[in-house]
Amino acid sequence: MVAWNNLDTLVSYKKLTELAKVDIKEAMTGEKGAERVKKYSVPMAEGMAYNFGAKQVDDDIIACLAELAEEAQLVDKYQELLNGEIINTGEGRMVLHQLCRGQLGTDVFEGEVNKRTFYSDVQKAIAEFANKVHAGEIVAEDGQPYNTVVQIGIGGSDLGPRALYLALENWAKTNNTLKMEAKFISNVDPDDAAAVIKSTDLAHALFIVVSKSGTTLETLTNETFVKNALVAAGLDPKKHMLACTSATSPLAQGEDYMAAFFMDNFIGGRFSSSSSVGGAVLSLAFGPEVFGAILDGAHESDKTAQNADIWANPAMMDALIGVYERTVLGHATTAVLPYSQALIRFPAHLQQLDMESNGKSVNRYGEPVNYQTGPIIFGEPGTNGQHSFYQLMHQGTTIIPAQFVGFKESQIGMDDVIEGSTSQAKLKANVAAQIVAFACGKDDEDKNKEFKGGRPSSIIIGDQLTPRSLGAFLAHFENKIMFQGFTWNVNSFDQEGVQLGKVLAKKVLAKDTDGALAVYSDLLEI
Amino acid sequence: MVAWNNLDTLVSYKKLTELAKVDIKEAMTGEKGAERVKKYSVPMAEGMAYNFGAKQVDDDIIACLAELAEEAQLVDKYQELLNGEIINTGEGRMVLHQLCRGQLGTDVFEGEVNKRTFYSDVQKAIAEFANKVHAGEIVAEDGQPYNTVVQIGIGGSDLGPRALYLALENWAKTNNTLKMEAKFISNVDPDDAAAVIKSTDLAHALFIVVSKSGTTLETLTNETFVKNALVAAGLDPKKHMLACTSATSPLAQGEDYMAAFFMDNFIGGRFSSSSSVGGAVLSLAFGPEVFGAILDGAHESDKTAQNADIWANPAMMDALIGVYERTVLGHATTAVLPYSQALIRFPAHLQQLDMESNGKSVNRYGEPVNYQTGPIIFGEPGTNGQHSFYQLMHQGTTIIPAQFVGFKESQIGMDDVIEGSTSQAKLKANVAAQIVAFACGKDDEDKNKEFKGGRPSSIIIGDQLTPRSLGAFLAHFENKIMFQGFTWNVNSFDQEGVQLGKVLAKKVLAKDTDGALAVYSDLLEI
Repeated sequence: MVAWNNLDTLVSYKKLTELAKVDIKEAMTGEKGAERVKKYSVPMAEGMAYNFGAKQVDDDIIACLAELAEEAQLVDKYQELLNGEIINTGEGRMVLHQLCRGQLGTDVFEGEVNKRTFYSDVQKAIAEFANKVHAGEIVAEDGQPYNTVVQIGIGGSDLGPRALYLALENWAKTNNTLKMEAKFISNVDPDDAAAVIKSTDLAHALFIVVSKSGTTLETLTNETFVKNALVAAGLDPKKHMLACTSATSPLAQGEDYMAAFFMDNFIGGRFSSSSSVGGAVLSLAFGPEVFGAILDGAHESDKTAQNADIWANPAMMDALIGVYERTVLGHATTAVLPYSQALIRFPAHLQQLDMESNGKSVNRYGEPVNYQTGPIIFGEPGTNGQHSFYQLMHQGTTIIPAQFVGFKESQIGMDDVIEGSTSQAKLKANVAAQIVAFACGKDDEDKNKEFKGGRPSSIIIGDQLTPRSLGAFLAHFENKIMFQGFTWNVNSFDQEGVQLGKVLAKKVLAKDTDGALAVYSDLLEI
Repeated sequence: MVAWNNLDTLVSYKKLTELAKVDIKEAMTGEKGAERVKKYSVPMAEGMAYNFGAKQVDDDIIACLAELAEEAQLVDKYQELLNGEIINTGEGRMVLHQLCRGQLGTDVFEGEVNKRTFYSDVQKAIAEFANKVHAGEIVAEDGQPYNTVVQIGIGGSDLGPRALYLALENWAKTNNTLKMEAKFISNVDPDDAAAVIKSTDLAHALFIVVSKSGTTLETLTNETFVKNALVAAGLDPKKHMLACTSATSPLAQGEDYMAAFFMDNFIGGRFSSSSSVGGAVLSLAFGPEVFGAILDGAHESDKTAQNADIWANPAMMDALIGVYERTVLGHATTAVLPYSQALIRFPAHLQQLDMESNGKSVNRYGEPVNYQTGPIIFGEPGTNGQHSFYQLMHQGTTIIPAQFVGFKESQIGMDDVIEGSTSQAKLKANVAAQIVAFACGKDDEDKNKEFKGGRPSSIIIGDQLTPRSLGAFLAHFENKIMFQGFTWNVNSFDQEGVQLGKVLAKKVLAKDTDGALAVYSDLLEI
């Protein structure tokens, strides 16, 4: 059995706080800097690597992080999760998103149902449906094929699938596997749904309503909004609507859907890209094989996360360096900076994944913790960010650790040599330059032009952003965040912080307000 | 003459640090909370209002902020800026973006040239060109009209114009004033340019190359990338390329452009949306009248920023509350949360505007300051964020002050009553609910379901997001950030922190590296 203890009760944590801090500028300068960068690298699935040469650590700190991993039983806890223990204690649920990607623990059952079989069967049903749509066996009212798929969902039903779609849209076009364009409706702002409806060929569009509970206000509202538009266009909603929901939700009982693809309570929204939530829209957009490749890549990451050796477990190394930065060094924010335009919405997905999972002040038992937990995450693709907020990162009064991402090759492969180098070479040169600029800085007599350095960063390096490497990349972060939650002893799998706003919004709509809330309602003319 | 002193030398600042802190939860509860929300509001231009009822301030603190505004001579400094003083000391330049929107100070000259006339003339030239394109008087090689305009620029040449375009795209469609679709190429990642090129009808596209210096690596690379694609498609680049640049830049001398619209050194990239940088693309996309309306709205904001009374100067009130939160209360991060899908990229623009302007550690004279300056800015539209990072904002270990935005009416006007309320009402109910939830929280025996409250926020409330209100909104933030820079005594108008990375990237491309930089170059196979 594993023991769930607060971070500040662990011997290795106390030791960690007492170890000498590293001067990154000094450590990264000259030949010893080169040696560090070569050495401080952990291989990832799908040929990628997590390099932390420019992080504020040294051999002693890493050795202590390894002790912490052991004392906190991180891999044992992960194994318990894989084996179907109730890891989400607040809601009394298993945590099974990894099981969508393959079996790594013992068989897991809900009642009589083997959950691996359940998830596989859902994937097969989606693949069969998608293949029929692509083959023209399932067609719209006019006998013509469907050409667009629109996901109606919010939060985890939107950010992850959208980030994955955008990450592979150009790859799919280039590799002739873009079967249908995908669009997304998320916000309850009527302009969001209206804009999509107005720009979509409704007669040949499939809409996927995604809500695990079947009660999400925004999603049900947008579903009705879309159905009204379909009816107004003389179309039959039953020929255009699919559902991704749990078997017990109101949506599952509806007869209004062409098909319903189930998920369950053991997969949180922000971890649901691997379930039918991501599977339906991505299989329809790219074909089931592409979605399968994403899952395969993710499964490879899940395997590496089982390694007890921190030097062979990139998610655990990344996680513990992050805990050190957040809780020992006190950096509240982390910037996620992919040098890949395709990853434009990945920072928004990671923002949810990380901040919703570990933005907690109580431990698994509901007791307040006395240390800092999950960081604030933000980011934009490079090189764009270099011409924007990097100014503060280089010369501001707050240190922001950075997580860079770079790929050796582009996705589309269209490139030109301009002034002696390709655009891809320029892109890569910039990410390499930024890491060293943040770490080493530059002295200058003019203090306005001085860079103090000492800004820590890591980089994930891959060959190319493909379905498999994207899956591995996604799972790396899911597993990193899981390990961090274990280390902070918080429940990374509930989200009670989203409830109060819902309750108050209902009161406003019911005109059941007083005090400040009533005044804001008046000011906004609700 | 004004005096430029560090914040921590000011009497009113010392007093501010000593004033009792406000308990927001207590202050916002019950009828006194209602009174506060009614009272703590400053009218903005174009019928908007800045409401700070839920900020961690009280009458004493606001009175002290008013003293600070006076002691720091904020309005006097703004007037000097308007009058053409060298406010950007680091680069020895005037700061004139407000002059693009109208004359508020004395006449300003560069040599013999009246700068107001210069900016007006550029706007007229753009309007004339755009009108001819829209009227079919300027046409493509095949005699057909142009249908798409593509901005090639990065940083300030991209984020502001892109945010403004997206903010008005649906408004323009609804009001029949979308003349041409606009697209944007920014990143040096070849997949960015390639994706736009592949999805664009090149034969009928206009490309605007935007670089003040005419030397921006990414932009020149993407310009050549596009020209090569035009040539490969059998088209003449001279029939497709426009330039926005300074009169002295290499681009201005080129004969490769149909027209060049000038800007100058007195308008920084992040403040350039009001210049030809925003003017050309937005006038072509929406028509010159719409761009003119944006400028008019901004000009109204610029006027309110001249008021010495903090209760009549929303930008100054917003600025000083932000300084109080950052430097006295110590909150490093601010979330920008527009409840408007149209403002989806506005947080990214504000991120640049704020972090690049005030992310500085030295004062105007290049001397280190001993206090915290500009905050970290991030954000996403609501209600989307509620299902994502709001968890950490409600229950995490770090307090993140929030800046909400809400409009009474949607842009498109398509809406349905679902379960007794429209989508727009639901949207507004949610923003009202969030403000109160953050401020007041909720007690619960189960600490996992407890909300401590005490999270400060403000809201800007407007009737509808239109060209005029958008302009006023944009200028509000530009002026807020300017006042904050004055208060922190930093130069908000240079950006030396972006230089080092450029230098190192060039070294990488020239293979002139050693140490850590050489290893990263190898790992990335540059």
